[in-house]
Amino acid sequence: MAGRLIRIGVLGCGNVGASFVELVADRRKEIEARTGVQLEVVRIAVRNLARSRDVEIDAALLTNEAATVVGDPDVDVVVEVIGGIEPARELILAALAAGKPVVTANKELLANVGVELFEVAERVGVDLLFEAAVAGGIPIMRALRESLRGEPISRVMGIVNGTTNYILTKMSEQQMPYTAALAEAQRLGYAERDPTADVEGFDAAAKAAIIATIASGTKVVAGQVYHEGISNLTLADIDVARRLGYVVKLLAVVDVNRDAGGGEGSVGVRVHPAMLPTQHPLASVRDSYNAVFVEGDAVGSLMFYGRGAGGHPTASAVLGDVIDAAVNLVKGTHGSLGTFGRSRIRPIDELTSEYLIGLEVADQPGVLHAVTGVLAAHGVSIRAAEQEGLGPDARLFFITHDARESAVQATVHDLRELPSVRSVDALLRVVGPA
Amino acid sequence: MAGRLIRIGVLGCGNVGASFVELVADRRKEIEARTGVQLEVVRIAVRNLARSRDVEIDAALLTNEAATVVGDPDVDVVVEVIGGIEPARELILAALAAGKPVVTANKELLANVGVELFEVAERVGVDLLFEAAVAGGIPIMRALRESLRGEPISRVMGIVNGTTNYILTKMSEQQMPYTAALAEAQRLGYAERDPTADVEGFDAAAKAAIIATIASGTKVVAGQVYHEGISNLTLADIDVARRLGYVVKLLAVVDVNRDAGGGEGSVGVRVHPAMLPTQHPLASVRDSYNAVFVEGDAVGSLMFYGRGAGGHPTASAVLGDVIDAAVNLVKGTHGSLGTFGRSRIRPIDELTSEYLIGLEVADQPGVLHAVTGVLAAHGVSIRAAEQEGLGPDARLFFITHDARESAVQATVHDLRELPSVRSVDALLRVVGPA
Repeated sequence: MAGRLIRIGVLGCGNVGASFVELVADRRKEIEARTGVQLEVVRIAVRNLARSRDVEIDAALLTNEAATVVGDPDVDVVVEVIGGIEPARELILAALAAGKPVVTANKELLANVGVELFEVAERVGVDLLFEAAVAGGIPIMRALRESLRGEPISRVMGIVNGTTNYILTKMSEQQMPYTAALAEAQRLGYAERDPTADVEGFDAAAKAAIIATIASGTKVVAGQVYHEGISNLTLADIDVARRLGYVVKLLAVVDVNRDAGGGEGSVGVRVHPAMLPTQHPLASVRDSYNAVFVEGDAVGSLMFYGRGAGGHPTASAVLGDVIDAAVNLVKGTHGSLGTFGRSRIRPIDELTSEYLIGLEVADQPGVLHAVTGVLAAHGVSIRAAEQEGLGPDARLFFITHDARESAVQATVHDLRELPSVRSVDALLRVVGPA
Repeated sequence: MAGRLIRIGVLGCGNVGASFVELVADRRKEIEARTGVQLEVVRIAVRNLARSRDVEIDAALLTNEAATVVGDPDVDVVVEVIGGIEPARELILAALAAGKPVVTANKELLANVGVELFEVAERVGVDLLFEAAVAGGIPIMRALRESLRGEPISRVMGIVNGTTNYILTKMSEQQMPYTAALAEAQRLGYAERDPTADVEGFDAAAKAAIIATIASGTKVVAGQVYHEGISNLTLADIDVARRLGYVVKLLAVVDVNRDAGGGEGSVGVRVHPAMLPTQHPLASVRDSYNAVFVEGDAVGSLMFYGRGAGGHPTASAVLGDVIDAAVNLVKGTHGSLGTFGRSRIRPIDELTSEYLIGLEVADQPGVLHAVTGVLAAHGVSIRAAEQEGLGPDARLFFITHDARESAVQATVHDLRELPSVRSVDALLRVVGPA
């Protein structure tokens, strides 16, 4: 018995698109046997018809007019892997309006206009699936959307950028300075020639916005995410963290507060380097791997680990979504994203955390007294202190008890005014044990 | 607008059942807001009506006749948390026959007659969901069933028994001998008074059978799973593993071979202590946590980590499934498990792995020559060797290159015949780097 044929139109044929076309061809028999649905890629929109591709693709499928793929009555499901906001947004809206399910891997789009698209999909009753947009092959979106639908999520912490995790692993394990580790990442193709989006935290901030939206049910866009990158981290920072029992990771953190004293809930979303206890499950996520750590009321701690990027893992996630959409189409049903509220986004100033503060000081009488006086004046209390080096190279490190970001920033400001302080060169937020 | 009311009948009100009833009451408003479905527990079957319970439960809901809950026309969805094969099996079949979706956390049932039940559910077109049956709160079943539907899984390795992982963590990190660690686990309620099911690997074998069935699409039952427990492990074994760069974990391993040279596929399923490289993601899974590591063709390595047991995490997984079933019921649809084949189950003899072999030997001339002669005679080649201690307490350790289980077992047999070998007291399979 032949399964019902579902015809796919693919927008974009870069790394992910080409891998996806190849996967569908390789696995159609097995998918048909398991699900009763026969998948076939029938149209592919590309920018440049003449470009040569790694994957063998029937030239008759190619077009450079994406809108004709969406509008083609022979296309049942649309896969969008172009990236960027326009024309992806217009094309997806057209597909949804035509009742065609859409699968997208487009992080930038969802981090900016995701909720607008989710609401259209919900209204017209069509699937809009996006597992591949965050953390590539890791099925974190499905877990948050489905498995944890009955579970109020209080916090999500993710290592969601493979480039920076690779660089930090090299710095931590091989004492490779930042610039050398970045160069190595570029050589291996993990980092772009212009690495800004990765190393300054923009990429992670976009993913954090999507995770925050889905985990909290409230609209969060990329521009609302506080972010710091890793380009100012030194081997000395990583070294002192290690001696204190921590590793340094670039984290995307989402804190959901559902019950702000009877009123509206609020959401905190931020990306920055953080110190994680070495026994924390996220601490052992190495190289270019990604992982997302989720804390729920009843379920406790969960972690999802895997490849966050790359053509094959990402295409595998796209294919999982396409099978879902195809099976739903055959059954005449569709998934639901629910509704999205508009909770308050908490500014970083309101964050409460432990902090590591590192200072270069003149090794002279009274320095420690002056420095601790500034901390005390802002109500920042000290959990541990360490001095490194002597004489002109002396550095002081403090780990604070829980303190408010605004108080710590004010402390750093005042420390910089002290004549005996040469510089405040490390400020890292510290994550507690899992 | 009030959501559609879905009424739940619960069979069993132990730890998980009581947590589930409480969760539904606590979260019904939030679930209704997010999904449009109103959940209510309307009947609860218990063995003993008189027993006092930690959770406040309206006595009017209780009955000691489970069949009346299943047959009650006011019950839309049945939750089975009784455990054991009968009467759970009969009750589930009756619910499915009546068109009522079933959510079960019953590992023993599924590991023995799961495929029979899956096939009935598929035939009558009703949901049968069981996320909680394997690894408690970790959404591994949904990942294998849905996210990875298009992904041929080649291997699954799981730490799926929290009791033994707790004991092994104490042995590894605090050099606590096995019996002391077991006593501590019993004191904390992690281990039963009779710990056989956990420490001899029966519990993990049942979970391995379910994972194997879902990951491979072929029927595997608990009795087909080769299993060894941890009760013979010593601190010396764990210590030598550490010195060689490994940790010892009790692993459930499923190897799927889809393409056995043009013929039928086959599946290998086994549970035994294994040495994992310290940098392997599973190596950092500590205490009573569980984790499941999945390798797929395109997606690469994935890991799912969390609480594998306990009333709250398990009840959270049951609730996730109930919401799924309820939403499907409202939409008039249901999920699909697909069809199950009957591939060959490979016996342990056919396993190929690296092995650690540990021997107590008499420290006399010619011992090493005699021992290596036995290995060579069986074609088992040595990757690393180490001697520990001197004189009468001397121990030898070998790590082999990849060898066949049957050859290693024959080697061990012959080593025991050598006059200079006092005992072969360690035989551990070694997992390669991730």
